[in-house]
Amino acid sequence: MAKLGVREKIVAAASERFHALGYNACGVQEIVDAAGVPKGSFYNYFKAKELLACEVLNTYWADAGLEILADTSVAPLERLRRHFQHIASRYKKFGFERGCLVSKFMHEVSDSTPVLWKELRKQVGRWTALVAEAIREGQGDRTISNSIDAEATARFLIESWGGVTGAMKLAASRGPIDDFFSVAFGPLLQPGSPTPRKRKARV
Amino acid sequence: MAKLGVREKIVAAASERFHALGYNACGVQEIVDAAGVPKGSFYNYFKAKELLACEVLNTYWADAGLEILADTSVAPLERLRRHFQHIASRYKKFGFERGCLVSKFMHEVSDSTPVLWKELRKQVGRWTALVAEAIREGQGDRTISNSIDAEATARFLIESWGGVTGAMKLAASRGPIDDFFSVAFGPLLQPGSPTPRKRKARV
Repeated sequence: MAKLGVREKIVAAASERFHALGYNACGVQEIVDAAGVPKGSFYNYFKAKELLACEVLNTYWADAGLEILADTSVAPLERLRRHFQHIASRYKKFGFERGCLVSKFMHEVSDSTPVLWKELRKQVGRWTALVAEAIREGQGDRTISNSIDAEATARFLIESWGGVTGAMKLAASRGPIDDFFSVAFGPLLQPGSPTPRKRKARV
Repeated sequence: MAKLGVREKIVAAASERFHALGYNACGVQEIVDAAGVPKGSFYNYFKAKELLACEVLNTYWADAGLEILADTSVAPLERLRRHFQHIASRYKKFGFERGCLVSKFMHEVSDSTPVLWKELRKQVGRWTALVAEAIREGQGDRTISNSIDAEATARFLIESWGGVTGAMKLAASRGPIDDFFSVAFGPLLQPGSPTPRKRKARV
């Protein structure tokens, strides 16, 4: 494997440290210590922690399985499932205790770090558009219910996912992700779909 | 109005500062400065920032409208709506830019602050139980659909809410809350319910 350059070492260390600690609790010193590079060299590559965080976000998204959403060889509903399952599989290696980097940043930072904030908005917007497109495609071929609003449902799937990952972190378990699939995916299904959703209610 | 004691001043200032900055970015110095009390006096009242954060959480929950959920004089579905609308109304005064204190803490802290972490788990568990109870009651009197699993739906409503508040903060708008009501509440409705949910799909 090729040896990492200083820049790559910084990005790799920051990706791990930001995910573990969040944006505010992770300073430049923490990152250069983890990367094993002198602090002085940091500023040769990044003018500010905020700009490094944007690059870390891009690295994080690169493995978010967005290409799964766009793979038209797979039925739209199945693509949506595989996409979110792919993200969930990334949390498993941390025992579900780390949550999602994007949601962490969303809760922690604000427009006082305007470059990072704008990047977050842009990326969440792109993600939402891909999910909405898959829903509309499923509605077009009647594999996804036409009684839902594709745009509102796409937004809500993504909005809710951020909370699901926080709850997963709190519970240190996959349970909230299972709730997401059983509850949030329910309205997408065509009536009479075989997927089990009903359980006897306690009255 | 009675003059606040030092302890109350610290709790009030911490409530505002934690909500604005999050747990990690808000230190004891920030809190005592905002409270206008000497730093030395802080430790007469709180052994650690973590214990103050637990008290702040309790203050936050005291105005979360949990009593609305338990008010059996109102129909269960309406109670659920009023409860979440009550929480949403608290965000409005900050232009929807602050998010939810509970979700912020959930994403930022971990079991490295075990007292706060345990408190968060306990409070979220109590909240979930109240929401599940309202859903079961609505299923009992047939005002809420019996095709949903009351427990999973209650968990998901609360899990998703944490993401909705993050998205609201990112968008600086109420939009994600409206998505929550139109999408997440959909499965609770009885089939044929007059609440508008359907919009013409783009095919």
